[in-house]
Amino acid sequence: MRWIVLIGLMLWGGGMGGYAQSGLRPKNLILMIADGCGPASITMARDYARAVLGRTELALDAMQTGAVRTGSTSSRVTDSAAGATAYACGIKTYNGAIAVDTAGRPVATLLEAARARGMATGLVVTSRITHATPAAFAAHVPQRAMESEIAAQMLAQRIDVLLGGGWAYFLPPAEGGRRTDHRNLLREAEQAGYQVVRTAHAFRQGLRRPVLGLFGPDHLPYEIDRNPENVPSLAEMTRAAIALLQEDPDGFFLMVEGSRIDHAGHANDAAAHVREVLAYDEAVAVALDFARRNGQTLVVSVADHETGGLSLGRNVNGRGIYAWHPEVLARVRASYEQLIPALRQADRPDSLLKTWAGLERLQADEQALVQQALANPDAWPHVVTELIGRRAIVGWTTNGHTAVDVNLYAFGPGAEHLVGSFENDELGRRLAELMGFDLPALTETLRQQEWVGENY
Amino acid sequence: MRWIVLIGLMLWGGGMGGYAQSGLRPKNLILMIADGCGPASITMARDYARAVLGRTELALDAMQTGAVRTGSTSSRVTDSAAGATAYACGIKTYNGAIAVDTAGRPVATLLEAARARGMATGLVVTSRITHATPAAFAAHVPQRAMESEIAAQMLAQRIDVLLGGGWAYFLPPAEGGRRTDHRNLLREAEQAGYQVVRTAHAFRQGLRRPVLGLFGPDHLPYEIDRNPENVPSLAEMTRAAIALLQEDPDGFFLMVEGSRIDHAGHANDAAAHVREVLAYDEAVAVALDFARRNGQTLVVSVADHETGGLSLGRNVNGRGIYAWHPEVLARVRASYEQLIPALRQADRPDSLLKTWAGLERLQADEQALVQQALANPDAWPHVVTELIGRRAIVGWTTNGHTAVDVNLYAFGPGAEHLVGSFENDELGRRLAELMGFDLPALTETLRQQEWVGENY
Repeated sequence: MRWIVLIGLMLWGGGMGGYAQSGLRPKNLILMIADGCGPASITMARDYARAVLGRTELALDAMQTGAVRTGSTSSRVTDSAAGATAYACGIKTYNGAIAVDTAGRPVATLLEAARARGMATGLVVTSRITHATPAAFAAHVPQRAMESEIAAQMLAQRIDVLLGGGWAYFLPPAEGGRRTDHRNLLREAEQAGYQVVRTAHAFRQGLRRPVLGLFGPDHLPYEIDRNPENVPSLAEMTRAAIALLQEDPDGFFLMVEGSRIDHAGHANDAAAHVREVLAYDEAVAVALDFARRNGQTLVVSVADHETGGLSLGRNVNGRGIYAWHPEVLARVRASYEQLIPALRQADRPDSLLKTWAGLERLQADEQALVQQALANPDAWPHVVTELIGRRAIVGWTTNGHTAVDVNLYAFGPGAEHLVGSFENDELGRRLAELMGFDLPALTETLRQQEWVGENY
Repeated sequence: MRWIVLIGLMLWGGGMGGYAQSGLRPKNLILMIADGCGPASITMARDYARAVLGRTELALDAMQTGAVRTGSTSSRVTDSAAGATAYACGIKTYNGAIAVDTAGRPVATLLEAARARGMATGLVVTSRITHATPAAFAAHVPQRAMESEIAAQMLAQRIDVLLGGGWAYFLPPAEGGRRTDHRNLLREAEQAGYQVVRTAHAFRQGLRRPVLGLFGPDHLPYEIDRNPENVPSLAEMTRAAIALLQEDPDGFFLMVEGSRIDHAGHANDAAAHVREVLAYDEAVAVALDFARRNGQTLVVSVADHETGGLSLGRNVNGRGIYAWHPEVLARVRASYEQLIPALRQADRPDSLLKTWAGLERLQADEQALVQQALANPDAWPHVVTELIGRRAIVGWTTNGHTAVDVNLYAFGPGAEHLVGSFENDELGRRLAELMGFDLPALTETLRQQEWVGENY
C-alpha cells in the first residue's frame, strides 16, 4: 500500500515539490494533538500499558515518523497558543497568540481552508473548547484568555462537530456562564441549526450535523476521575465525530486534542498524566482504525510541547536509581484535582493516601514528608509528588513547559512526507501542502474582511 | 536518489521481507552511538548551535527517522552494556552484560559478522576503548567491569581501526597500567602488526591499517577541556577511520561512539554535556559527508539510553519558567572534572566561578548556595548544577540513567527501513538483516569455539 503511494508520487509529482499536485492527496485529515506530551510521556504510557494492562505497545507506536521542534517567536519554550498556531497556520508566533502573526494580524487555519473547500470540519477536545489549542484552529485573537470572543468566533465558523468541555464561555453569568456580553451562545447555536448536547446520555442517543456537545462548564474531568456515565471518553467523541464527518463527499478535517495530558504535567501528577496519555492513545486507535479501512485519510499525531520536565528515573536519597515502576501509578485512583483538596482538609490523611493514592506502610522519610504537609497544607502537591515519585522513580523539573522536541506520528497517504525532524510551523505548512490548501491566499481573503469581534 | 532505492526495493524485494536479498544492501555500515543522549540533549545542542554558533540545525536533524525503546531484561532503565549489546547482537540482555545473553552465553556481533565476511572493521570512541559500548561489539564477558579481559579479546579480534582512550587496560602496573596478568598488550599489538599510536602528533603524521590509537590512560578529556594539540577530536578520529576503512573492497563496519555525553549527564554538567553532543554531531557530519559522496554507505545514529533526566525548563523559586538560555552554558569553560576539584580547594571560589563557569554578580540566593558549598565541599557538584541550572533554566532529575525513548537517525541505502519506533534489539536485528549478516548462525559457530578468557 505504502509502496504504491510512493511510486505514484514519484511518477506523478517528481518528489517532494510535487505532492500537492499529484492527485494522490489525502481526502481527509485527522490531526491529533497531545497537549504537553513529551517523549518521556510516551515511554511512560507504553511501559504502563505493558506492566499494568498487558499490552505490547501503543497505537501510536505503529506510526512514528520523527520529531518536531516546538519553539515560538517569543521563547524557546512555547505555550499551547503559539504551538497550536504553528500547526493550524504554518507560522511561528508569540506565546499567547491565537491564529494571529507577530503583528497581531489573522492567519488562515487548516480548518478554515478545509471549510473554504467545502469539507466537513470538527474539533474534539477534553479541555474547554475555547482553550488555546482548539481556538487556534477556529478563531483569531491576540490573547488566548479572550475566551468569550473565541467562543463567538468559533460558532460563527459553522464547524460541523464541536465536542468537549467549557460551556461557561457560551453562557452569561445569569445562566451559570462567564460571558460578559449577555449573549447565550448555546441558544444562538440552536437557532443556527446546531444540535446542542450537554450530557453523555444525550450524546449517546445519537448526533446529527452540526453538533455542539459540551459536557461540563469547564475542562472535562481527568480520565482517572471520569465517570463514564456522565462524560464520554476522548475515544468515544472521536468515533462519533468521524462517523458524522465521513458522510461529507468533499472529505473532512478533524482536530482531536488530548488536552489534559498537559494539565497533569503542570500539576506533576504522574498517575493522572499517564492515564491521559493512554486515553489519547485510544482515540488515536479509533482514528487509525478508520484510516486503515478508509484508505484516503491521513492521520497525524503530534504534541505542541512537553510539560513538567518528566523523566523516568530520578535520584532517591542522592542516588540515581536504574528502574521505574508503573505499578505504583496503577494504584493511584484519583487526580490531584480530587486528592489535594481532600488532603488539605483531612486531619488524618493516612487513609486517604492509602485508598486514593495507593500509599501505605509509609517509611520514616515518607512520614516526615506527610508531617511537612500537615504543618503547611500548601505543601501537599509537592509532598504527594515526592511520595509517588520516589516509589515510582519518576521525576519532574518544572510546573511549566519545556523545550524538548516532541514525537511526530503519521499514517496514510502523505505520511511518507512526514518522516524527519520538523519545525512546528514547517509541519503546519507541510500539512497544508499535502491537503492542497493555499493558506497564504486564504489569509489575504481573511484580512480583507472584518475579522475581529465586531461582526459577531 | 531515495526514490530510486525505494522503487528498486519494491521491484526486487517486494517490501520489508525482501530487503536483505534485494541486492541493494549497503556496502558499508557506520553505526554511531551517542551514549546517554536523550531527546532533550538533542534539542539542547540545536538551540545552543543556533544561539551561540549561529548555525541553523544539527547534522543529525537531516536524518531523523524515529525513536528507539531502550529497556533491558533486568530493568526498564538500561545500562550501556545491555544497551550496546542490543544493537551489536540484536538481543536484549541484563544490565552489565557484554555481548552475552541472559544465560551468559556469547552472542555474535555486527562487527564479528562484518569481519567474518572479510569486511574491514573499526571502533572509534572518546571513553576507554574497553568501556561498555565498544566492548559489546568486540568482546564477550558476563560483566562490563572485566576490562582487562575485554582489552585482550578486542585485540584478538584483529579490528582494523581502534581509536579512543584507555591504554590502562593494555598495560601492566609496572608500565602505568591496570592489568593484573603482566601482559603488555600494546607491545603484543605491535608484534601482531598494529601501528600503535599514543599521541595526537603521531596520529596526524599518518595512519596505516591495522592501527591502535589510544590517546590517554583513561577516558579522553571532555570536549570542553580538550587541548586539540594533545588529543584528536571525535570528528578527526572518525575521518581518519573512514579514510583507512574505505580502502577495503569488501566494505566496512565502523562503530563511532560519543562516549562522554553520558558522563556529563551523570555529573549533571550541562555545559560539558552540550559540547559533547555537538562534538558527536560533528563526527556525524563527517560520516554523512562520506556517505553522501560514497552512495553505498548506511549511516545510523542512535543512543543507548538517556542520562540525567535532563530537561530544558525548570522551576526557579517555585515557578516554572517558559524559557531556557544556552548563552549561560556558552560562558562555562571547563567541565566539572576540572572545576569541582579546584572549587573544593579554593578559599575564595568567586574568581574561579567567574572565570571558568561564567558566574558573576551572584544574587543573594546564589551566594547562599556558595556558602553551603564552602561549609561542605561535597556539595559543590550540586551547588554548581543549581547555579548554572537556574540561570540557564535547565533541570536534571538523576545522576543515573532514565527510560525515555531515544532518537533514531538513518541515511543512505536501507534508511527507509529504519522509519518508526523500534525496540533496541529489533534495531540490532534489522541492521544485521540490512547488511545480510546471519547473526544466529555466527553465534552458533562462536559457541562451538572456546570463547572465554582461556584462549587469550
